[in-house]
Amino acid sequence: MTHLRARAVDLDATDPLRAFVDRFVPAPGVQAYLDGNSLGRPVAVTAERLAGFTREDWGTRLIRSWDEGWMEIPFELGDRIAALTLGAAAGQTLVADSTTVLLYKLLDAAAGARADRTEIAIEATNFPTDRFVAQAVAERHGMTLRWLEADPVHGPGLDEIDRGVGAQTAVVVLSHVDYRSGAIADLPAITARVQASGALMLWDLCHSAGAVPVGLDAAGVDLAVGCTYKYLNGGPGSPAFGYVAARHQDVLRQPIEGWMGAGDVFAMSRDFEPATGMRRFLSGTPPVLGMLAMADMLDLIEQAGLDEIRAKSVSLTSFVVEAADELLPEARLLSPRDASWRGGHVTLGHPGFEAIVPALWGEGVIPDFRYPDGIRLGLSPLSTTYAEALDGVQAIRGALAERPRG
Amino acid sequence: MTHLRARAVDLDATDPLRAFVDRFVPAPGVQAYLDGNSLGRPVAVTAERLAGFTREDWGTRLIRSWDEGWMEIPFELGDRIAALTLGAAAGQTLVADSTTVLLYKLLDAAAGARADRTEIAIEATNFPTDRFVAQAVAERHGMTLRWLEADPVHGPGLDEIDRGVGAQTAVVVLSHVDYRSGAIADLPAITARVQASGALMLWDLCHSAGAVPVGLDAAGVDLAVGCTYKYLNGGPGSPAFGYVAARHQDVLRQPIEGWMGAGDVFAMSRDFEPATGMRRFLSGTPPVLGMLAMADMLDLIEQAGLDEIRAKSVSLTSFVVEAADELLPEARLLSPRDASWRGGHVTLGHPGFEAIVPALWGEGVIPDFRYPDGIRLGLSPLSTTYAEALDGVQAIRGALAERPRG
Repeated sequence: MTHLRARAVDLDATDPLRAFVDRFVPAPGVQAYLDGNSLGRPVAVTAERLAGFTREDWGTRLIRSWDEGWMEIPFELGDRIAALTLGAAAGQTLVADSTTVLLYKLLDAAAGARADRTEIAIEATNFPTDRFVAQAVAERHGMTLRWLEADPVHGPGLDEIDRGVGAQTAVVVLSHVDYRSGAIADLPAITARVQASGALMLWDLCHSAGAVPVGLDAAGVDLAVGCTYKYLNGGPGSPAFGYVAARHQDVLRQPIEGWMGAGDVFAMSRDFEPATGMRRFLSGTPPVLGMLAMADMLDLIEQAGLDEIRAKSVSLTSFVVEAADELLPEARLLSPRDASWRGGHVTLGHPGFEAIVPALWGEGVIPDFRYPDGIRLGLSPLSTTYAEALDGVQAIRGALAERPRG
Repeated sequence: MTHLRARAVDLDATDPLRAFVDRFVPAPGVQAYLDGNSLGRPVAVTAERLAGFTREDWGTRLIRSWDEGWMEIPFELGDRIAALTLGAAAGQTLVADSTTVLLYKLLDAAAGARADRTEIAIEATNFPTDRFVAQAVAERHGMTLRWLEADPVHGPGLDEIDRGVGAQTAVVVLSHVDYRSGAIADLPAITARVQASGALMLWDLCHSAGAVPVGLDAAGVDLAVGCTYKYLNGGPGSPAFGYVAARHQDVLRQPIEGWMGAGDVFAMSRDFEPATGMRRFLSGTPPVLGMLAMADMLDLIEQAGLDEIRAKSVSLTSFVVEAADELLPEARLLSPRDASWRGGHVTLGHPGFEAIVPALWGEGVIPDFRYPDGIRLGLSPLSTTYAEALDGVQAIRGALAERPRG
């Protein structure tokens, strides 16, 4: 046994969260699932939850279920996500729409609330949807987009904020954890700096929620959105969550005004009168079926505790960096080496990676390829073992060694 | 046995679609489900489909499923809905978002394509979301809303179009089947009249799809949206469908530009370049879990045939009108008496209705109450029996007779 394998065995043996790995649907033929930060694995009880829901809540209670609880699911789930993963008090978070649509709604509302300003600022290499939505919202409000440049490995810092954000800035959109590098942005410091300019701060928490503590209320964040199909294991295309600080809720007006966001949903009144609180940020009928699975993962997060989850996440990514240093010395580490500034995934760069990923997938070793030459290793703390992570790094080493040379 | 009961027994016995009733999840304790036009019942195999999907496609194939089919589901399902229920050729329909959000996207795109015009026209008592969205889109484009008045029982006719639509009209939004009265609008004639003015025609098909043939291509309709949780039994909050005639697809630009609507989804390019065809109308990650159930209902619709379904629908609503005439003579028929202009539901009015609906629901007789004094009887052709419909009308009669007088 190599010393890395021995380390992996020991780390798994002493992992206080090890038992959670068995709470997920088994995946026969998958040796190493390293893409849980793109699509989290289903919790085992989710399969029966969905079937039981279909037979009971939907199939037998039928339309009555809307009165018996469905109308509140977006807010109850939002509050659970807020309490367990976001550091946010109740009444500020909902689950709705896709991340793209919810980002559009909140960003448009923010721009409307700073209509006297001329710019939306966004990191130049933020996730495409964030940039595309920001571009479109800026155009609609007669604003321009201000690109913030940032270090590709360490993400945006206060210098970038000072250079790009000022009295002209309506709102700033940044990712808390970068989707490529996994770098954690200094959310409290950046939020304070942005707000000092009078702009609103909107954080994208897609790669944070469920893996990295966020602390929205403590930092006084204005707005946030995030995914539920990554570390919250809500299933493919499960709806997004959105956070609007209580102080903004009755001031902001989102653009997609539908019956579910009206003050009296069933009044069928002629003119739209927005609900108070978070309900005004709903548009259409809540996607009930799509909101069920994440509840099972929230149960696990509650049992494990987010601090324990973060501790395992740090340990997992540190072990992968250690293994990559030894087994893949020719690869570049594209994530921060300092674990305190690294989220739940590690990205490595090598010109040979693009060629090997399809074969790895075929063998059941499943990382994410990121153009042009990155392999992203997503390590979902509750479902990933150290042995599995090492299997992944070893398989990459093997595939690189065997690839045909051009 | 009363003659109505004998008629119901005979109609069920000779119903060529009777066997389909047993294809749905049984609902013990429910005597009459008359709200299938608000939330369709689950097909029995849907429970196992969802569980199996969770264990296999999601749980075992994991992220690989996006490459193995998930990316195409919005279009494959859209094409099936189009072929089976909308009278539309492939490549013009997708499944995405909520009805509210998809309506917003298509209506905003339509207004943008007629930016030289000044009005959006909509029926004054259309479903609230339609009116609220139209109001918001009009404001955004510097347009005003033109309210079309229409007969409350028979819906809008060509006279209303002639009075309200002209060279100033950018787009007209109407429901094909009215959500209250069930009146069917003359879609081909109205579409032609609206288009003669140079405006675009957007039809809301929420209460049509799966119950009433539509004929979008034959009528040359520009745009349409609709629900999948009514007669398409997609489950609570299942995503909407949207139709964009092929000739408009590469001209219209929808407002919520996200990565899934980009020409190259994974290129992560700096500027948004919309995909060609229907893909550009996607925004965020497709809600895969929420799209599964409707496929089972589409299987049933395919087996039954839409013409047969419509024939049973006409027969069911005619029988309910006949029963109401006899058993509820004091109630007003708020739906067209001529079945050829009536969709899948029948609405009755009576000042005593509001007081009795909660007790009916408690007894497992489940119609829909519509403010101020309507009971809407939704008759989903594949899951509703004549006996069940009669049970519903008799229960309403009994509850009305027993109610305390004020």
